[in-house]
Amino acid sequence: MADKQFVKEIADINVDFPQWYTDVVLKTQLVDYGPIKGTMVIRPYGYAIWENIQRELDARFKATGHQNAYFPMLIPQSLLDKEAEHVDGFAPEVALVTVAGGEKLAEPCVVRPTSETIICSMYSKWINSYRDLPLKLNQWANVVRWEKTTRPFLRTSEFLWQEGHTVHATREESMAETLDMLQLYHDFARDILAMPTFIGQKSEKEKFAGAEATYGMEAMMLDGKSLQAGTTHHFGQKFAKAYDITFLDKDSKHKHVWQSSWGVSTRLIGAIIMAHGDQRGLVLPPKVAPIQAVVVPVAAHKPGVIEKATEVAAQLRQLGIRVELDTRDQSPGWKFNEWEMKGVPVRLEIGPRDIENGVSTYSRRDTCEKATLPLDNIAQSVANLLEEIQTNMYNKSLAFRDSHVKVAHNMDELQEALDSKCFAKVVWDQDADCEALLKEKLQATVRVMLDEPVFQDSCTICGNKSDKLVVALVARAY
Amino acid sequence: MADKQFVKEIADINVDFPQWYTDVVLKTQLVDYGPIKGTMVIRPYGYAIWENIQRELDARFKATGHQNAYFPMLIPQSLLDKEAEHVDGFAPEVALVTVAGGEKLAEPCVVRPTSETIICSMYSKWINSYRDLPLKLNQWANVVRWEKTTRPFLRTSEFLWQEGHTVHATREESMAETLDMLQLYHDFARDILAMPTFIGQKSEKEKFAGAEATYGMEAMMLDGKSLQAGTTHHFGQKFAKAYDITFLDKDSKHKHVWQSSWGVSTRLIGAIIMAHGDQRGLVLPPKVAPIQAVVVPVAAHKPGVIEKATEVAAQLRQLGIRVELDTRDQSPGWKFNEWEMKGVPVRLEIGPRDIENGVSTYSRRDTCEKATLPLDNIAQSVANLLEEIQTNMYNKSLAFRDSHVKVAHNMDELQEALDSKCFAKVVWDQDADCEALLKEKLQATVRVMLDEPVFQDSCTICGNKSDKLVVALVARAY
Repeated sequence: MADKQFVKEIADINVDFPQWYTDVVLKTQLVDYGPIKGTMVIRPYGYAIWENIQRELDARFKATGHQNAYFPMLIPQSLLDKEAEHVDGFAPEVALVTVAGGEKLAEPCVVRPTSETIICSMYSKWINSYRDLPLKLNQWANVVRWEKTTRPFLRTSEFLWQEGHTVHATREESMAETLDMLQLYHDFARDILAMPTFIGQKSEKEKFAGAEATYGMEAMMLDGKSLQAGTTHHFGQKFAKAYDITFLDKDSKHKHVWQSSWGVSTRLIGAIIMAHGDQRGLVLPPKVAPIQAVVVPVAAHKPGVIEKATEVAAQLRQLGIRVELDTRDQSPGWKFNEWEMKGVPVRLEIGPRDIENGVSTYSRRDTCEKATLPLDNIAQSVANLLEEIQTNMYNKSLAFRDSHVKVAHNMDELQEALDSKCFAKVVWDQDADCEALLKEKLQATVRVMLDEPVFQDSCTICGNKSDKLVVALVARAY
Repeated sequence: MADKQFVKEIADINVDFPQWYTDVVLKTQLVDYGPIKGTMVIRPYGYAIWENIQRELDARFKATGHQNAYFPMLIPQSLLDKEAEHVDGFAPEVALVTVAGGEKLAEPCVVRPTSETIICSMYSKWINSYRDLPLKLNQWANVVRWEKTTRPFLRTSEFLWQEGHTVHATREESMAETLDMLQLYHDFARDILAMPTFIGQKSEKEKFAGAEATYGMEAMMLDGKSLQAGTTHHFGQKFAKAYDITFLDKDSKHKHVWQSSWGVSTRLIGAIIMAHGDQRGLVLPPKVAPIQAVVVPVAAHKPGVIEKATEVAAQLRQLGIRVELDTRDQSPGWKFNEWEMKGVPVRLEIGPRDIENGVSTYSRRDTCEKATLPLDNIAQSVANLLEEIQTNMYNKSLAFRDSHVKVAHNMDELQEALDSKCFAKVVWDQDADCEALLKEKLQATVRVMLDEPVFQDSCTICGNKSDKLVVALVARAY
């Protein structure tokens, strides 16, 4: 019955997943379309999720010795052109400022699609000695990439992200940074987003333009597709050579530096939605939920109800729980539906009977179970419940994922896996022709290479034997 | 002697204030010039000040019922054109994206110089009923205004800011919001930046393009010039009518909404520098200082010194003090100079003699006094000292300001006041010709009108009698 009501508001998740996604992001007021095609307005409920992501990530960045800075958004066209692969990769989707202050500019400016070029030009000026290294900066910023096909959070012409850019004296250090940040993303997704991810190196084809190696974090969505949720790049000395970033080492020799970069974006909000949602709408992990618990008075006109509900909300707030007291002039049923659609982890009801019994009826969003909690010490009980929900959501996602990964020994098995909405582990000879075939025949891609022992002596895709065999994760992807 | 050393690095504050400012912002690594003229790179030390400003302001915004959101940076040209005064005010300095994704755009996009237009277009869609009001949103964002003459933090082609945009059912509410936020800025400047400010309404001429009334917060810099450090605007129903924002009120009538907007920017960093700095460089108020205390080991090779310095730093960190332990391979004297230039409020020295005596020699940046603190309970002593420095810096700024405001009864007194690097309180008949005269003869402007009783019966500037006389603050300004 409650589910039926929602069918009216949002598409059936099992029938039309893309429409379900669109309905959910719009109707829960996470986001709206901006006036220019492909842009999004991040509404307060969506932005609060981003703020929680930022706070958690920023603390982890700082704890690992990174500092924030801010680099200009407008980059001279000529600066972008210095690294050949990089400009080839990004030129097709850049936005250009050609007129400013009423005059045509002598040289157009690129609105940053990413900031390697401008940051490297500054690093070249700032770095002189080994004493200046390592330099580990991050920026929180907007970027613009003119995309043909867009969807809120997943692919938009403008999005918000963080981009870390680090500089080191040796290859070992920059490589360690590249992998450490990949692990940091993985742990963050696990601990905060309740989202298990696969991490590993990307193929040559999927590499970031200008990088020596790219590593990715891939998350499984409920439709069995993969979402690239974060990447880290090892540049080796490629940008250092293009932008002339050198330092005087302890041995009195001038050397080029070694670099990494890494980023995650507002796309993570899309990942949360598609990894945890259900028929009723959003299911938000407590650690990123803008509202962790909502208190709904029932029979609010009865004496003592509003007072008790207010008192309970205050107790929760006191303990640091993000709580909302819903005293709006609407029926409890209407409110229950709305807060369920919005994915609030815990709903507390306070009515005359609850008060009489010294309890609050609660409903947890992850399982939709209802039960009661004693009013005595209720804040601590809710805090415990939130912990339990966070853990349960991760375990549920992990179980879902583990039951949706198949080992494919040949193309038939691979197709069968993908068609049954699973990821596939394959053995791959790292040949680009195999990737082309995957794309053409199965609309799938190699997401990452996994650090696992190969389970057969020939490539799952082409059947060839090779001394370059690796285990790769293949999936259809966003 | 120490001062002499600095004369080499930074210009004399009493001789060439503008050069002193430029030297300080560059040499303390707050900022650097970006590759495109007029843009700035905010380096980690500068960005950390901005983060502290953001954290303090954001908490105050949220405590007064505001939520954050994010609106697209690119605005269709046609949307900007809807409010006539607004577009006239901003058109001369906008940057235009005309090419994107490899194609010429059918309609150019404006890079936001401010976001009223795009936000109002969304509000028009979102607001239907009195139940949707008030709507009180804020965004932290970058904006672009193509300026002819630029200086880091004070006036740059791109800067960071926050812009609040609120919508209300009645004029009374939107007016109250406009004034409340002005007071919030004033209190924030006093409590966090240790900076007394004048607040009041701006003249017609200085009003924000499209506003019904603009209010400003003006701070006195050490050269006697005024810096506009924040503004709030009351729009009345002007934008509501241009963008068709209406709501169904409780009385079942459709009405236009009432609106305010308000903002402060990275300009505040410039204000801090010029309100508190001295011959040796920056003097940072503890509440925004990225590093509140630095611990410098003296004779670091002697047994126990590094250990004790590390222990003291850990104790301070434990108490929530932002502390840096400086173990770099440089002399203590070199470090003292550097941290003084960088404006760190408290420097602690730990040497063998200090340890023997159970003390740490400290130097406070605001007064440059040196004394000792017992090592017992040193963290709490430093916390107390930081409080004292914060208070002292405010009192010092207030005393400076109060001694640099003169009452001007006529143009001669006004000129004398301005030439002696003071602000002047004048009586003004609110005639625009007087403002033009001020500008032409004295290179000065009416900063704000003050809510004070008029002290004579004719205008200080033109000498005319009028029934529109007000007290106004006149100054030369940034």
